[in-house]
Amino acid sequence: MLKLSSINRMATLTRFYSLKSKKIILDASNLEFTKRNEIILKNLHKYYPSISRLDNDNSVDAYQKISIKKFNETYSNLDNDNSEVKLSIYGRIKKIRFSGKKICFIDLINNYNKQLQLIVNYNNIQNINNEQEFYEVLHFLKNGDYIQSFGFPGLSQSKFKTLSLKCNRLPIIISPAQLPLPPKLNDHNKIKNNRVIDYQVNGISTIILRSFINKQIRKFLDERDFVEVETPILSRQSNGAIAKPFVTKLSSSIENGKEKLLQLRIAPELWLKRLVVGGIDRVYEIGKVFRNEGIDQTHNPEFTTLEFYQSYASMEDLIKQAEQLFKYIITSLHESEIVKESVRCKEIVDSLYNTLSENDWRFNRIDFLPTLTKEFNNEINFNEIDLNDPTAILDCLPEHVKAELFQGVSQNKLSPQQILNKLCSHFIEKKYCNNLLPTLICNHPTVMSPLSKTDAMKGNVSKRFELFINGTEFINAYEEENCPQLQEQKFLQQKNSSDCYGDEEALPIDNNYIESMKWGMPPIGGLGLGIDRLCMLLLHKTRIEEVLSFGTLSDVNRQ
Amino acid sequence: MLKLSSINRMATLTRFYSLKSKKIILDASNLEFTKRNEIILKNLHKYYPSISRLDNDNSVDAYQKISIKKFNETYSNLDNDNSEVKLSIYGRIKKIRFSGKKICFIDLINNYNKQLQLIVNYNNIQNINNEQEFYEVLHFLKNGDYIQSFGFPGLSQSKFKTLSLKCNRLPIIISPAQLPLPPKLNDHNKIKNNRVIDYQVNGISTIILRSFINKQIRKFLDERDFVEVETPILSRQSNGAIAKPFVTKLSSSIENGKEKLLQLRIAPELWLKRLVVGGIDRVYEIGKVFRNEGIDQTHNPEFTTLEFYQSYASMEDLIKQAEQLFKYIITSLHESEIVKESVRCKEIVDSLYNTLSENDWRFNRIDFLPTLTKEFNNEINFNEIDLNDPTAILDCLPEHVKAELFQGVSQNKLSPQQILNKLCSHFIEKKYCNNLLPTLICNHPTVMSPLSKTDAMKGNVSKRFELFINGTEFINAYEEENCPQLQEQKFLQQKNSSDCYGDEEALPIDNNYIESMKWGMPPIGGLGLGIDRLCMLLLHKTRIEEVLSFGTLSDVNRQ
Repeated sequence: MLKLSSINRMATLTRFYSLKSKKIILDASNLEFTKRNEIILKNLHKYYPSISRLDNDNSVDAYQKISIKKFNETYSNLDNDNSEVKLSIYGRIKKIRFSGKKICFIDLINNYNKQLQLIVNYNNIQNINNEQEFYEVLHFLKNGDYIQSFGFPGLSQSKFKTLSLKCNRLPIIISPAQLPLPPKLNDHNKIKNNRVIDYQVNGISTIILRSFINKQIRKFLDERDFVEVETPILSRQSNGAIAKPFVTKLSSSIENGKEKLLQLRIAPELWLKRLVVGGIDRVYEIGKVFRNEGIDQTHNPEFTTLEFYQSYASMEDLIKQAEQLFKYIITSLHESEIVKESVRCKEIVDSLYNTLSENDWRFNRIDFLPTLTKEFNNEINFNEIDLNDPTAILDCLPEHVKAELFQGVSQNKLSPQQILNKLCSHFIEKKYCNNLLPTLICNHPTVMSPLSKTDAMKGNVSKRFELFINGTEFINAYEEENCPQLQEQKFLQQKNSSDCYGDEEALPIDNNYIESMKWGMPPIGGLGLGIDRLCMLLLHKTRIEEVLSFGTLSDVNRQ
Repeated sequence: MLKLSSINRMATLTRFYSLKSKKIILDASNLEFTKRNEIILKNLHKYYPSISRLDNDNSVDAYQKISIKKFNETYSNLDNDNSEVKLSIYGRIKKIRFSGKKICFIDLINNYNKQLQLIVNYNNIQNINNEQEFYEVLHFLKNGDYIQSFGFPGLSQSKFKTLSLKCNRLPIIISPAQLPLPPKLNDHNKIKNNRVIDYQVNGISTIILRSFINKQIRKFLDERDFVEVETPILSRQSNGAIAKPFVTKLSSSIENGKEKLLQLRIAPELWLKRLVVGGIDRVYEIGKVFRNEGIDQTHNPEFTTLEFYQSYASMEDLIKQAEQLFKYIITSLHESEIVKESVRCKEIVDSLYNTLSENDWRFNRIDFLPTLTKEFNNEINFNEIDLNDPTAILDCLPEHVKAELFQGVSQNKLSPQQILNKLCSHFIEKKYCNNLLPTLICNHPTVMSPLSKTDAMKGNVSKRFELFINGTEFINAYEEENCPQLQEQKFLQQKNSSDCYGDEEALPIDNNYIESMKWGMPPIGGLGLGIDRLCMLLLHKTRIEEVLSFGTLSDVNRQ
């Protein structure tokens, strides 16, 4: 039997340089790194000590561990060196510069770019034999190294009197960089290949801001008595939205010789509404949903949504909640320190803050059918057309519109919802929804909204709205259909769309959901918000990959 | 073309009784419901009004909407009826009882079982013609109906002077129950088939408590400067744990005629550590992970974990964090009102609180190899055996142990980690880890812990611990291997285990992860905690399905 230890040793030495290396612009220091790596590789345990070992080193027992953040807070008012205090600080080297042969300044970072200056002065160092040793140890250090430093709080001798750690022992490498960071990294393709380098070079403000935004959403809902829940991702049949699901299978489930297929959820909607039936008046989930569709500038197969459901909430209540939620998030960003870390984020947040506060934090409104009627110079009254009948809708349109939008479409090739979607996109979204002031389209035709409540006064429209900013949809919200029989009618209408017009974007019938409504579902207002898109808006990013921790699925697969 | 409207009408009437009905114990009122449903079905829009329509009803304009929770808060000190105030309250009927022909008491619930008594007294009702109408309207109501009620705050005439809404208009049904709730529901199989009924009959305290526990975990980590992130679920190759992944495929990705397969993540570990390399010193994720394994009492293919990573944290620091986290969660539950909603939860939380506080909130500790040595009466010193060599381990064991645990196992059939796992389970977990006082096993052999840091002092063990309570594992934590070459050695050792011993539980090599470490990974302490198991413990549930919103995957597929 081949011994493991010899395999490993061999593998380490031969494979180190052969591993396919990510192509990144490298500066001239590359060669220096290669030379240093030879030394590091010969003594990995020395250069990669465990923290347990460092913490148990008796010779530095007297030094108290402190973070850069805590150090800066504790000694912010220091007016004199305090050599009585013995501190140990971990951090990453951002920059090293020498002043003569005996003094070295090291900029150390940790705690999300909190920075600290180390002053390593030969004359203060206790555990050292001669200048040569001082020179060798400090010149071995490189930007990107993690080190442990030892010293006392003091002030630099420059006119700025910078708070510094004045070292009285030599710093120790605790994890060296084996590759040099590029000085800049702006090339999108290179960033897609390696987000870790992107974060190191360009900073992590996107991640911090996204985390902050999520936290504000949770705070907003928690303060309003919503309960956060987790509902299933895997099930026999995904539902609640119109999209192609991912399919997988459970290896242990073979029934009648056939494997049982599972789908990844495309929306948590029907699960969340079942929980309201179960008695949770206000419920929300922030979680991943999956749609087996292409990847582009604003779409990734895996993305994050917020959905909340509120008993007894009308469409007007939902609009108010959405306005309040935007006010809450934008105001908290506007007032936070965190936004200042990103110039572009600050710009857009300021603009949104000003635009919305000037409008008393209210959204602009567009009524679906009346606007369509107006767009056709009041010559067609869409309220009087049977919107379940695609021929009726197409017949009423002017010839030039048919030619432009529906050319070559033969009878029964498009479902009513497909025709209405096209009309909405062309005559409403493009014209009215391109502003920074959030604009909502409301009262969609019932046939487009199979899970929402029909407006009993009007008959053919639903209590629904969609919110747009700069032409992008952010929110879809409606009063939920809560009558099992009416819900079944709407499911059947979807099935009909799929059967008659081959509409692939029709909801499947979910009899168990209908059944669960019979135990009594209260009137509910529900709202869905795309978290990735919201982050793109608030961080002023044009591509979805920029707000995902490792980019889109194709980026993820490269790193 | 068949008209949609006629399809739907037909379908509603014929399918209503034919839909397969969940088998639930029904009381005698079943027949009454059937008769009432005939009336409801003839006028669905009347009995299922939209909230928009109710809110726009001018005849009740003067009534101000208020929730039961707000009503109880506002009028808690009421000492006299206040008929000046006009209030409208939505809720679900829990109980109806009549006192003579002219007075009816209705117990209404919403806001998670906040309760309110309605007093409907014929003499107070304004919008009514005669006693017969009063009788008919109120006898039409049933338990489980959602209604809108109108009235003023007042006190009952009983000796308790109960705060009530004294109605001055008849209540309106806004969503009727079409099926009667069973009075009790304890049968596990029936609960598995329909969690919605379970929640209605047995309450939603499990969901509320789980949500509370998650919130405490987030608060604990946020207060300690951890950043919450979301990492990918779908990727080419899952990693970070030892388990069989779910496989799916992206429909749009066909490369060289071959479809690209994707896996669902089994752990977020490697992504999160990459983010630490990117510069996020303290990071966490609470999210779903997926393992393509069987379903049993404590396992579901989809479950929730917390993982956090903290730069410069030693194993001792991690143990302290875990102790503090348990103290934080248990204390907040112990002090909260919410725990009182579940007797069993209160019992276990009190026990844990007492047990841990008596131990100064410290966990009990078991050292892996010394304990094993002790278990063999100090006749075998495992510190001196080459733990990478399965033959060496097996050879040293007494004959009766070999016979009991490894009978029939031929040479090279078990990997070293498989042998050590068996020894640990038999000689350590079973004997030392069955207490309510949390007990940790620490310092596992390196060969069992391919992603963790080796203790350089000892050479063959890792800075790792696992936490057990009552025989169940809750936490796995370690100082992370941060040296790319040492990590590669450990991956190769895993590959060797897989190649030589057919060990399916070996980690795959992830060269991109090794590569990303070369930019410099700080020393990191990382901890993983099973949220579902934690909830099982704290809610005193014996089956994982009881803490999942819709049960295990097989339950999910039935509802």
